[in-house]
Amino acid sequence: MPRSGAEARTRLRDAALALYEERGYDATTTAQIAERAGVTERTYFRHFADKREVLFDGETQLREVMTAAIASAQEELAPAALVLRAYSAAMPLFVAGRPEAERRARIIATSTALQERAHAKSAALTQALIDALVDRGIPEPTARLAARTGAAMFEHASRAWKGTSATELESLLRHAVDEVRALHR
Amino acid sequence: MPRSGAEARTRLRDAALALYEERGYDATTTAQIAERAGVTERTYFRHFADKREVLFDGETQLREVMTAAIASAQEELAPAALVLRAYSAAMPLFVAGRPEAERRARIIATSTALQERAHAKSAALTQALIDALVDRGIPEPTARLAARTGAAMFEHASRAWKGTSATELESLLRHAVDEVRALHR
Repeated sequence: MPRSGAEARTRLRDAALALYEERGYDATTTAQIAERAGVTERTYFRHFADKREVLFDGETQLREVMTAAIASAQEELAPAALVLRAYSAAMPLFVAGRPEAERRARIIATSTALQERAHAKSAALTQALIDALVDRGIPEPTARLAARTGAAMFEHASRAWKGTSATELESLLRHAVDEVRALHR
Repeated sequence: MPRSGAEARTRLRDAALALYEERGYDATTTAQIAERAGVTERTYFRHFADKREVLFDGETQLREVMTAAIASAQEELAPAALVLRAYSAAMPLFVAGRPEAERRARIIATSTALQERAHAKSAALTQALIDALVDRGIPEPTARLAARTGAAMFEHASRAWKGTSATELESLLRHAVDEVRALHR
């Protein structure tokens, strides 16, 4: 049995990824995930609310790093620059999480339920950035527009990232900003 | 009993809105919706796949109008202009659907399951616009960036629309374009 809660959590994540790949998302049960991870099903539900959450465990950390980057920025930064700062701060997480993120993306693509959860998760992340911008006194509508266009630019960069070197993401994000400028010139 | 399929569908939509408002989304069953609409539950499921779909019935028409506007545009329009054209073409639908959309938004705000479906629906709409742009020979990454920033601008306009006159949405959308330009200057 895993000794710590954090260790159990990591094992549950790994077990879920492996089983979803091997048997498919629909055919896998939380009991099977728990068994593969060497814990009880009750432990599974202590860590994750349902069968989908186990795939989105990195979201909390991502959100914390990104909102902290906005909160700690120097006074004079404009909304779009703050959003970019948030994504830049998360680069180490994206780079470290890349192999798992690619496996997860392939699993999510197989299930409508997972796609819905993924959309909700990215909406929640965008909302957290909006809240962090609003906390700095930026009006909510401007904050929302900056966070949503920022998310679009990040997705653009992230898709172009495939097949390139791990460190390329940051410059792809800068390039996406130029592309948005060119689109709306 | 309603005579036509279209009439039954409209009655089911109205009944669902009313019941979700009166009893809440979770406490309402498809059987109750069918009963209120004067049809069988089997008829409900002939029209809608689940308890959530009944709230998103306008999406198909919206998608058709918007993608047709992209497909029928003159040759030389740039990606961002095509996306704006699609939203402009849908203005009559947004204006006509405004009272129902506001009721629906209040119901969606009460349920995580409905919010997930709503996110998936707007992602599907954005994807349909991307596909329509790609069909015109626009590279997929550019099409995606244009459609996603377009969706952000439309949401911005749509939120500012509350409390203003019904015809204001189009000019609010133009204003959102200026705001995105100012953000990423």
